[in-house]
Amino acid sequence: MNFPSKLIEDAVTEISRLPGIGKKTALRLALHLLKQNEVVTEALALSLTRMRDEIRYCKHCHNISDQEECSICKSHRRDRAIICVVEDIRDVLAIENTNQYQGLYHVLGGVISPIQGIGPEELKIETLLDRISQGEVSEIILALSATMEGDTTSFYLCKRMKESGVKVSTIARGIPVGGELEFTDEVTLGRSILTRINYAQD
Amino acid sequence: MNFPSKLIEDAVTEISRLPGIGKKTALRLALHLLKQNEVVTEALALSLTRMRDEIRYCKHCHNISDQEECSICKSHRRDRAIICVVEDIRDVLAIENTNQYQGLYHVLGGVISPIQGIGPEELKIETLLDRISQGEVSEIILALSATMEGDTTSFYLCKRMKESGVKVSTIARGIPVGGELEFTDEVTLGRSILTRINYAQD
Repeated sequence: MNFPSKLIEDAVTEISRLPGIGKKTALRLALHLLKQNEVVTEALALSLTRMRDEIRYCKHCHNISDQEECSICKSHRRDRAIICVVEDIRDVLAIENTNQYQGLYHVLGGVISPIQGIGPEELKIETLLDRISQGEVSEIILALSATMEGDTTSFYLCKRMKESGVKVSTIARGIPVGGELEFTDEVTLGRSILTRINYAQD
Repeated sequence: MNFPSKLIEDAVTEISRLPGIGKKTALRLALHLLKQNEVVTEALALSLTRMRDEIRYCKHCHNISDQEECSICKSHRRDRAIICVVEDIRDVLAIENTNQYQGLYHVLGGVISPIQGIGPEELKIETLLDRISQGEVSEIILALSATMEGDTTSFYLCKRMKESGVKVSTIARGIPVGGELEFTDEVTLGRSILTRINYAQD
């Protein structure tokens, strides 16, 4: 594309560096900003630079935070004996939105993926082991994706945590709520039979 | 969504103001920027504010430009007798990319749309009539969308330009190149028969 202006060309180039945004979408966004009041663009640019410059990561769980300690780690209502291990900050938000979990988190920052060149040393595993070694933790819940990489990471973490004697569990894999049996893939359906749950009969 | 950080919440709010970007995508983009080097965010923010603050519009055709006059209006290779009237800057880029047009442009800045409250006075119609009245122009090509609003605008422009005696044409509507006849809608197909083109038989 030949742009009539260097300024818009630069903006389109920078916007299209974002994941999932091509040149055409970038141009649409740039022209949208041009049509809006200047304040909109200023607010967007300022919020981005402020976020990038000032954001901090919780020293315990590596969740994003405005302070040294995130609001979850600081909260007195949280059960400090359970740590849920997740890949990414988005997973923390997803689990928090369920309102079903009252423990703490540990954000690994990724999963082991030899193809992408991510080994265990790239992940926040040592700090997790440190937290366990302090003795307060009784259970670790592994909430990683049900992919090859997620399973590899879960397996690796299990091995590393074995010595500590802490109880390790993983979130249930099975057919989703509302999902129909006939449309579930065989692997999931097979697993859901193997890991069937006993009905409590009182 | 409850964000663990005010900074990321602000960024997500601002990003999700962009058209076609919801809160989830905005969060994905924000987290992407956090993972990248600071330079990426700085370059993005700077290019956006610079674009918004410094961009100018060509005084003749209202195309975006870095100077008072855009590169198309300034060029000596362009045929100054033909003006192609388009809705938007993106249409200029689209036509330029075809390499089939050597005339000048006129960017209206929209089409007449009573539903969106856009009347003729919101569009750059007077400056177009001014350009025509200077006498250099022999043909106006209307290249507006084949929608109700586009057709209304074309009709309005035709009426306004009638007195000037300038030749007015519109881009051809018909089945797209590579399009199959049986999948073309009836209106397009009907129009393409009515506005059929004579084969030149030499």
